[in-house]
Amino acid sequence: MPQKIIAVYPGTFDPMTLGHEDVIRRACQLFDSVIVAVASGHHKKAMFTLQERVDMARDAVKSLPHVQVEGFSGLVRDFVVARGAKAMVRGLRAVTDFDYEFQLAGMNRSLMPEVETVFLTPSDKYQFISSTFVREIAVLGGEIDKFVSPIIQQRMIEKVRSLGRD
Amino acid sequence: MPQKIIAVYPGTFDPMTLGHEDVIRRACQLFDSVIVAVASGHHKKAMFTLQERVDMARDAVKSLPHVQVEGFSGLVRDFVVARGAKAMVRGLRAVTDFDYEFQLAGMNRSLMPEVETVFLTPSDKYQFISSTFVREIAVLGGEIDKFVSPIIQQRMIEKVRSLGRD
Amino acid sequence: MPQKIIAVYPGTFDPMTLGHEDVIRRACQLFDSVIVAVASGHHKKAMFTLQERVDMARDAVKSLPHVQVEGFSGLVRDFVVARGAKAMVRGLRAVTDFDYEFQLAGMNRSLMPEVETVFLTPSDKYQFISSTFVREIAVLGGEIDKFVSPIIQQRMIEKVRSLGRD
Amino acid sequence: MPQKIIAVYPGTFDPMTLGHEDVIRRACQLFDSVIVAVASGHHKKAMFTLQERVDMARDAVKSLPHVQVEGFSGLVRDFVVARGAKAMVRGLRAVTDFDYEFQLAGMNRSLMPEVETVFLTPSDKYQFISSTFVREIAVLGGEIDKFVSPIIQQRMIEKVRSLGRD
Amino acid sequence: MPQKIIAVYPGTFDPMTLGHEDVIRRACQLFDSVIVAVASGHHKKAMFTLQERVDMARDAVKSLPHVQVEGFSGLVRDFVVARGAKAMVRGLRAVTDFDYEFQLAGMNRSLMPEVETVFLTPSDKYQFISSTFVREIAVLGGEIDKFVSPIIQQRMIEKVRSLGRD
Amino acid sequence: MPQKIIAVYPGTFDPMTLGHEDVIRRACQLFDSVIVAVASGHHKKAMFTLQERVDMARDAVKSLPHVQVEGFSGLVRDFVVARGAKAMVRGLRAVTDFDYEFQLAGMNRSLMPEVETVFLTPSDKYQFISSTFVREIAVLGGEIDKFVSPIIQQRMIEKVRSLGRD
Repeated sequence: MPQKIIAVYPGTFDPMTLGHEDVIRRACQLFDSVIVAVASGHHKKAMFTLQERVDMARDAVKSLPHVQVEGFSGLVRDFVVARGAKAMVRGLRAVTDFDYEFQLAGMNRSLMPEVETVFLTPSDKYQFISSTFVREIAVLGGEIDKFVSPIIQQRMIEKVRSLGRD
Repeated sequence: MPQKIIAVYPGTFDPMTLGHEDVIRRACQLFDSVIVAVASGHHKKAMFTLQERVDMARDAVKSLPHVQVEGFSGLVRDFVVARGAKAMVRGLRAVTDFDYEFQLAGMNRSLMPEVETVFLTPSDKYQFISSTFVREIAVLGGEIDKFVSPIIQQRMIEKVRSLGRD
Repeated sequence: MPQKIIAVYPGTFDPMTLGHEDVIRRACQLFDSVIVAVASGHHKKAMFTLQERVDMARDAVKSLPHVQVEGFSGLVRDFVVARGAKAMVRGLRAVTDFDYEFQLAGMNRSLMPEVETVFLTPSDKYQFISSTFVREIAVLGGEIDKFVSPIIQQRMIEKVRSLGRD
Repeated sequence: MPQKIIAVYPGTFDPMTLGHEDVIRRACQLFDSVIVAVASGHHKKAMFTLQERVDMARDAVKSLPHVQVEGFSGLVRDFVVARGAKAMVRGLRAVTDFDYEFQLAGMNRSLMPEVETVFLTPSDKYQFISSTFVREIAVLGGEIDKFVSPIIQQRMIEKVRSLGRD
Repeated sequence: MPQKIIAVYPGTFDPMTLGHEDVIRRACQLFDSVIVAVASGHHKKAMFTLQERVDMARDAVKSLPHVQVEGFSGLVRDFVVARGAKAMVRGLRAVTDFDYEFQLAGMNRSLMPEVETVFLTPSDKYQFISSTFVREIAVLGGEIDKFVSPIIQQRMIEKVRSLGRD
Repeated sequence: MPQKIIAVYPGTFDPMTLGHEDVIRRACQLFDSVIVAVASGHHKKAMFTLQERVDMARDAVKSLPHVQVEGFSGLVRDFVVARGAKAMVRGLRAVTDFDYEFQLAGMNRSLMPEVETVFLTPSDKYQFISSTFVREIAVLGGEIDKFVSPIIQQRMIEKVRSLGRD
């Protein structure tokens, strides 16, 4: 029987979109404590550094109680176990890459049988937002205010401007 | 912030398979109380009556604490709201009919915005079990011991025998 | 080079949902004339008769210019060819049964090579509406005002009441 | 090491389409003997009787050596084992219902671990043919010569005519 | 009511395949004017330069009236709006990456609500052609005459030869 | 009628997983001779060199009779034809990227019409193993003994250690 359930929501969050925020809000309704785990993502080329992504995520969720944001590198399994979490949250949209998600969930069941992967679905209006597209649109100077919160939008504009200066 | 979270796991359970039992066990790890809600399924032709399905489900989960089994007819939404549940559990397998699940989850988000649909994935070895196939195999006299628990298997054999007598 | 393009939007429309209406509005932006073709659907058990479904569809689209509603039985191919249409419109949602749609489009390419199947996607907020679910919810007394327009909702309530009297 | 491999290709074949025939021809290239197993399909309403479907299949494949057609009722597992087959052939098209196929293959792996499910893909031009659509088109008087062989076409026309007389 | 509808068909076209050409021909049947918009694709490593891809596309479609080919960089949204287009054409095959297409269509609905994404399906015989595979086959010296038109084939052979000289 | 059927099972095998080994064992039951064809994979960044991957694959399958392992570069078509193979084996899991597989199979049908693509499905317990995830877990120091055979595990540990020294 559960007493206090900690859930980890891992991701690259490059950047955190309104869809991610929606999933976090939903996780908060179900679990006693939610840890947003920002992966260093050593093997992907991120637009923002790990520290920037952690800062942005903190800004985005600061009004939510019982949510913490932490960066991590290494295996998500090790992070989850170290925090004593019993649930790992993943967002599931109609356009999710299910193959990837199922392989991940399956391998995680092998690596940490005592932790459940919990799929939550964001609101209809966030079904088609993708961090990748958001980055592309921002880089090309398009409007992203429908996809990210104002504070993230501001940071992306600054980042794109700084990249342009290089 | 959650205090006591009640989760409802609805289905026809005609019959309850080892995959269903696995999902229930996983839900028990996450939620304070799990209600298995057996739908009367008025529009489908079930092999077992509602009462039989409720009884079988009770037998199958009797060793699990904090799990109750109840039959219901009408909207699952009304059942969930009446029980004060905040989560509705669905099993998600690699071969799940996602279109159906997403439409259901989407319409339920409209009908009961305060209740989250939570997708859990059963163990690898239960990924391909389907109640429909189990019924077909049983009717044709095949072995179903890898797909349902012994108590369900016994009931199916009796049911098939009684149908044969008709 | 196209002069006047007629598009046919076939379906059972049992009943017409807000998603269907959205697809019709979009088709109106692209084609000179749109014919909503309500299939008799002899092989499915419809909640509403063909005449009722045609009437409801007419009510739902009456504010749209250049849209007609017609019932038909027989091959959609024959209907499309008889109307001189060059496009057949289908709604495509993230949860569409693609297998069905692709088989249909493929066989229609064989049967009427001069007519294009054109897939349009409704708005995000209509991605998860399904006529089947709408009927189920209505029969069980649930609220359907988020899924169909008021005039359809009224008709469904009356229909459910009349079915209850049987 | 294989000596003589017998493969069973089960299905309802109501009717056998050009896609089915293509799969059979491909199976003949790989296996020493191919048995087309026509399921009685007790739980589906077939257009043709089991005997008619067996006869039509025999007509369709009569030019292929090492192919036999047999009707069967009961578990496909029992049929496959009784024939000493080591392979069960299934056609796989881009529009196949993979969920169904994977559940079937998974349950068959449990029921007959010594028999392999072998998926073969028909030619591009047969990717979108479906027996269900062929029946619908035939019943409504449409042309089916692109989807079935002449002998099957003739039989369908006769069947539709005889149904019309009822 | 539409008067003159301009449709944009965007892509990388690296190179244009017979499948792309088929989609363009279909679009020509429906719309008054079709603009093939060749994306600079700054973030992908293309085999051909933007100018080469534009030239090849022009060669491939030169016999089609009312079709223009233009290169562009930046947001496809800006290109579409600048041309006054009301439709954006996408090819949809049974093996399309639907997740990508739906996310793209969804984000484009947000960015340009007045422009419809229109999905057209190429002929059966072009369902499995992919530019990526065509490039791989060409680089390894394989035959590509079934996948691209002769003029494109010639250019690819020359390109592969020139790459080999580096 | 087949006499001796040679089957080629191509892949990158970086590294060979328990899922790959399972597919090979299954292919051995059906075909007279199975050639595991390790692709040089010039366009992907492999963890192991071609020679290392060939050696590891040989170690993994050495107990299976009638199986050979060979490296190759160039078109898989040329390799298959040169070996006189009539079947090309591919593993198909519920989480397979079907789009990729179908495009590949379709293009191969064009390039080598006399060779069948044969899809086999590994056991339930290997449905979610992915070479990519195995590499990631190994690099981050996680346990991979449930995903690869002991000899492969040993090699990966050594490789990760040697990479760490760079």
